[in-house]
This record gives sequence, structure tokens and C-alpha cells, in this order.
Amino acid sequence: MGNEFLKIIEVEEAKKIIKNLFKETYKLKSENIPVEDAYNRIVSEDILSTIDLPMFDKALKDGYAIKSEDSFEASEENPKILNCVDMVEAGSFSKKTIKTGECIEISTGAPIPNGADAIVMVEYSEKLEKSPTKDIAILKSVPPTEDIAKKASDIKKGKIILRKGTILNSVKIGILSAQGKYDVNVFKKPIVSIISTGDELLDKDEKIELGKIYDVNTNLIKGAVLASGGIPLTKGIVKDDYNELKMKIMEIKNEDNGSSDVIICSGGTSAGVGDILKNVVDEIGEVLIHGISVKPGKPTLVGKIKDKIIIGLPGNPVSAIIIYSIFIDPYLRLISKSSEKRNNKRRNLELAKRIHSAKGRMEYLLVQIKDDKVYPILKDSGAIASLSYADAYIKISKSIEIVDVGEIVEVILF
Amino acid sequence: MGNEFLKIIEVEEAKKIIKNLFKETYKLKSENIPVEDAYNRIVSEDILSTIDLPMFDKALKDGYAIKSEDSFEASEENPKILNCVDMVEAGSFSKKTIKTGECIEISTGAPIPNGADAIVMVEYSEKLEKSPTKDIAILKSVPPTEDIAKKASDIKKGKIILRKGTILNSVKIGILSAQGKYDVNVFKKPIVSIISTGDELLDKDEKIELGKIYDVNTNLIKGAVLASGGIPLTKGIVKDDYNELKMKIMEIKNEDNGSSDVIICSGGTSAGVGDILKNVVDEIGEVLIHGISVKPGKPTLVGKIKDKIIIGLPGNPVSAIIIYSIFIDPYLRLISKSSEKRNNKRRNLELAKRIHSAKGRMEYLLVQIKDDKVYPILKDSGAIASLSYADAYIKISKSIEIVDVGEIVEVILF
Repeated sequence: MGNEFLKIIEVEEAKKIIKNLFKETYKLKSENIPVEDAYNRIVSEDILSTIDLPMFDKALKDGYAIKSEDSFEASEENPKILNCVDMVEAGSFSKKTIKTGECIEISTGAPIPNGADAIVMVEYSEKLEKSPTKDIAILKSVPPTEDIAKKASDIKKGKIILRKGTILNSVKIGILSAQGKYDVNVFKKPIVSIISTGDELLDKDEKIELGKIYDVNTNLIKGAVLASGGIPLTKGIVKDDYNELKMKIMEIKNEDNGSSDVIICSGGTSAGVGDILKNVVDEIGEVLIHGISVKPGKPTLVGKIKDKIIIGLPGNPVSAIIIYSIFIDPYLRLISKSSEKRNNKRRNLELAKRIHSAKGRMEYLLVQIKDDKVYPILKDSGAIASLSYADAYIKISKSIEIVDVGEIVEVILF
Repeated sequence: MGNEFLKIIEVEEAKKIIKNLFKETYKLKSENIPVEDAYNRIVSEDILSTIDLPMFDKALKDGYAIKSEDSFEASEENPKILNCVDMVEAGSFSKKTIKTGECIEISTGAPIPNGADAIVMVEYSEKLEKSPTKDIAILKSVPPTEDIAKKASDIKKGKIILRKGTILNSVKIGILSAQGKYDVNVFKKPIVSIISTGDELLDKDEKIELGKIYDVNTNLIKGAVLASGGIPLTKGIVKDDYNELKMKIMEIKNEDNGSSDVIICSGGTSAGVGDILKNVVDEIGEVLIHGISVKPGKPTLVGKIKDKIIIGLPGNPVSAIIIYSIFIDPYLRLISKSSEKRNNKRRNLELAKRIHSAKGRMEYLLVQIKDDKVYPILKDSGAIASLSYADAYIKISKSIEIVDVGEIVEVILF
């Protein structure tokens, strides 16, 4: 705490500090939710099978349950005749026990009757219609266990069926359902409060006045937080005023059951605003980073207020989303455990237009992707139009001045 | 309609019929929702800018608004002295008009005062502290329009800002917010009713009885429908009974405002069940496909009841999810307009274990992916354990008998 001077730091150093901050400050929490609402959630513990699957010896084919030795040497030319004493459909079971010379008609999925040890498929049988005693001709010899799935052969009770960290896509939810599970323990999503600051900001549908602009960042960051696997809580617009900003942050800090894990402020455009946030965090928490050697987004702030992480993003939406993507998204994914999904977001593609970059600062640039080629968006970073073309961003190292047409660049998709 | 015989058809022919069915039967609908809830939705019309952006000539830097000619020939050695007559922060504006020899202190984002045509950055100015008349030394010559973003230079009122079909990720939502838009027209998501059929099926938490198994498919298909961009409505379990199934389907057909667009039934395991669904659809609708030459999933049914699409999937969960992925998912994405997202789901990877496939039928196989290698899951298709390992599936053409270790196969991720 206090007002010590914080020097501008390099990108990699900033990432290290932020990663540590997220890992050390955020406590992983678990919650119990219905399986049917668990799509895309992440299991927070190894899950063991509570039952054997199949729960009973099960027919894999439609046909006849028999004692296998009754079929030995049977063939089309030399059928064995068995007496059919019962019929069992999937969902029911037979109370009878098969004796030598008997069989029971059975449907796929039904439990194997007592006394039987094999299934003869219906294709290898023949109903002797005229027989008054329901005789069945068996046309094929089958070995023991033929077309039977033994109890627990699929999954044994007590076996791990889903590992901690598994994303519950449709098939993984299927596994839980096969257990008859009603609920499942999943990681809680981190809760992110979003504040936009700036005297110039209008809320949606407010009347336009000279000098005012509509607030972009609340919804922009909200969408980004959803993509990172967090729960966004929008906290509205705050004026560039020390007391007002402090009150808003204290409100979030003092929420019942401390629901917010992260607070993201995006600053106004005026130079003094970054300092307002810094002064507030200095007073009630600790500033860890104030200034990163990166273009755009130099005045980025990272700090901590008790057990909450606080981030100050630039007010300019293009800068805000780039800084969010580089310095917040990966670590929010880390704590929300949804990091795996992110691998879908990188592509190596060809640059379609030369880029000149300023030496000495890492630069991030919005790009548009057309026909698998990368077009840099060279508007000034205040331009909202950039956002309507932007599909992704690219990184240009601080030692590079020119990236030429045809070079392969890594794009990170929004 | 009627009971005409439907022959088993090839995969490509089935896909064609299903694609046509979805395109012709489903009517694209639009709905109006708040921008803040529109994350990941798809805009249903071209959206035009309702305002100019910037809405006014805007300062791009902190500094002084001047008449540019007042700075001409200024330098560190030969500063020009201007009289500062006002100060304007972002969010406010100055009522004064600059005259020759005057300047106004200005913050980034603030409107350019009348009479000014350029900004001198604060770095190229000096406050003459001792001057009683607030004189400012200008240390650099700047041309007209320097560091000014002209009104409408970013986006002109009436220009298209988002094309029909755009997925509203965070940056696209940012664009709408910059307009102060409260709501947006997006495509309605198709509504999919899900029925599980089978005498053997238990609902979650029901007591286990011999011969019964827990229903997997309701939640499995629910998750899959969410992934395809649809809204799943789960309709519970129906016995393998003509009248019960017919009543359930009639209920869905007669819903107020016909809310379901697609009905997906998954059949029990017994052979007769496919026929029950076929008979119901024959009576109250039209069967288009009954039987596809594919392993697993041969008994798949596709039909139409008035303006609703009806699908019969195999009861076996592994078969059901494979058939869903091949024959339903692409067309549900087509009508939900979320097809683009699917490109993330394909990868070309190396096979780690030889596969033997039955000739004559297209075969689909669940696979596990470890260290970017593809391991086929060779359990019988009734095995639930398959689902706990399955990351993806692969396709094996009907003319291929062996796929060897090291061959590159295309995997389609769940």
C-alpha cells in the first residue's frame, strides 16, 4: 500500500504478476447443480460410478436365451429343437429358470434369465408354427456368453467415470445420466463486477449531449467475461470522481458473502482518471502494476483489495478489449478452469498487408480475416469502426519494425 | 403418407433429404432482445448506424485547442505565447469561441471548441506560471486538423455496422453499445422437443428394478441441441406404446403458438420400437427416411408432421449421439445460423491404432484423443463407458476395410 512509485513493466513480467495474483487470490469453489443444467460446466472432483453398468447380465441381440450346450452341433441341416417357456422384453424380466431343452425369447437389453448362458440371434432360429408346445428350431451352435454383456463389464461400481476438470459436453452429461445422477459438483464460475468510468459516458438510450458518448465498455467487457467462463455483473457508470469511484468499489467489496471475485474498471479518456483508480486502490488495497510497456494500453492497472482482484483497463474500447484479451482472459480462464476451450482460438495465417510497428513497445493490433488472409486494421485506436471489422488480434514483438506481406502471423480470435 | 415401403438409403442421399427438409420446413424467425443479453446471438438483419461517430469533432490528445496558424514557426527556441481562455474536460464542452492568440486547454475525447482547428499536445506546451493572464507557450508548429477526429470520420450515420448473420461476440456487442442501442433483432433459436422412448427407461433418481436402465438420451441430446444452437425442451420418457407415443407427439404438435420446430425421439432397444414411431408418423405426418446404410444407426427415421420436423434416433446412446452429430447437428446449425462455429470442431490427426471396418456400410467410430493421436474406442456400441472416453468421432468410408496406424484421419470433436 501507500504511494510508492511503480515503474512501467514489460509484458512478460506483467503476465507473471497477474497469473500469480489470480492463482493466489482466487479460491476455487465448488457448487452442486442439477445434471440437466450442467452443460459446459466443469466437474470439480473425480466422479465415481455409483452402480455397475450394465446393472445386470444383458442381451445384446434379439433372439433366444439358452443353455449354450443345448446348441452345440446345431446347424441349418441339423437344428436343435428347444421349448420356449417365456418371453422377456427390454424393461421387464423373466421369473423362470431355464432347464435343459428350454429357451426364453428375449429382446435386446433385457436381463438374461436364470439358467441361460448364451443368446442365439433370431436370425439363427425358426419358430415351429404348428408346434402346440412353442418349439423353436436353433440353427447355429453358440459358445457360452455369446451376445451377453455381463453385469459391470462396461463400468464397475466405484470406478472413476469423469475426472476432475472434465468439461461436461453432451456425451459427458450422458455418462452422468446413465448413473441416474440428479446433481453434480462443478466449479463455481468466478464473478466479475464491471464498472465504466468517465464524465463523458452516457448509458444506453440516454439523450445525446455535446461532448458525451455512449458507454461501450460495460457490454464489451460483459461479453468478454462470458467468453472467459466468468459471470459478469454490470455495475453501471461512475463519474471521474475519487469519492464516487471509491464508494462504488467499497459497495462491491462489502457485498454480502463477498460475491465478486474480480472488479474490472475501464477508465475514461482523460489523463487523470487512471490516477483516480490508483489512488482509490492505494487507499483501500494494494496496487501491483500501474503501467505496462505495451501499445495500446500503457496505463493498465492491476491490484488487490482484500480477496478481490481489481483491474483498471483503458477507457478506449479497442485498447480495453485488447488489454482484456492479453492480460485478463487467460487468467480468468485459468481460474474458471475453462482454459481448454481457448485452444480453438489461435490460427496461423498469412499477412495480406505490410505492418509498420513502433520499436520498443510490444504492439497488439486488431485484424480482419478474409479468405484466410490477415488484414491489419490501421485506424487510430479510438475508432469504433475497428471493432466492426475486427475478427482477431495479432502481436508484434517490441524488436520488430516491419511485418511483411506473406509472413505467417498468429492470430488470436475474439 | 401411408404405409409404402421405404428402402434403406445411402448416407449422402439421406443428408440431402434432411438438408432440404430443414431448409424448406423451418421458417427463419427474428426476435428483439436487449443488447446486453445478446452475447453469442446472431443478428437477423443488416444493422445501420443511427448516429455519426464521433458525434462531434473530438480531441485525440490532451493539450491545447488552437487556431493552427497561431502555431506556425513555433519551436522550443521560439515559442508562441497564447492566452488560455477556458478548459474543457471529456464529457463537457466550452461555450467560448477561440480568437487569434487564444487557446483552450482540452482533454482527450472532449469536443473541439469553436474557432479551433488543431490540437497541440501537452508535451509541446508550457504553462507560464508567473503570467497573471494564463499564458501558454506553444513549442511546436502543427498543421490544421492535427490530433482531431472529425465528426463522422469513424462511422457515418446510415452506414452498415453489422451484417445480417454476424455472431454477436464481445466486440460486435461493443459496436451496438457505441450506438446507444437498447435492443437488437436476432434470429430466434430453433426449439427442439426431446422424447426418450422405452419400457426399460428409468428417470433420474427412480428406484432401480431388474431390467431397467437410467435414461441417458434426454440429457445427452439436450446438451447436443444446446451445442447446435437450439433450445432443447425435454419431454420426458414414453413407454414403447403406440398410443402413448402418439399422444405425446400430438401434444407437442398442438402446442400453443406451435413452439417446437423439431421433435427428436430416441427409441428403446427393442426391435419393434422403430416401427411404433414409424406408424405414428405415417398416421399423422409423413415418413421421408426409414433406414440409412450406416453403422451404427441403421434404423434412423426422418419425417415431417405439418410444419414440424421429426427425427427418430436409435435408443443406444452411442448410436444416438453419432447419428445426431452426422444427420441433425449440421442442419440445426444451418437453421440456427450458427454454422460458422462448427469449423472449430474438425482436426486432422494421426491414428494410433489400426481399425478394421465392415465393408458396405459407412461406419462412424468414437475416438479418444491423447497427445494429438487418435485412439479408436472399440467397445460394443451399447457400452456407456465409450462415452466417458469419447472426445470425437471419425468416419470410415464404406469401401475401406482397414485404416492403418499413422494414417491421418479427420476427427470431429464433440
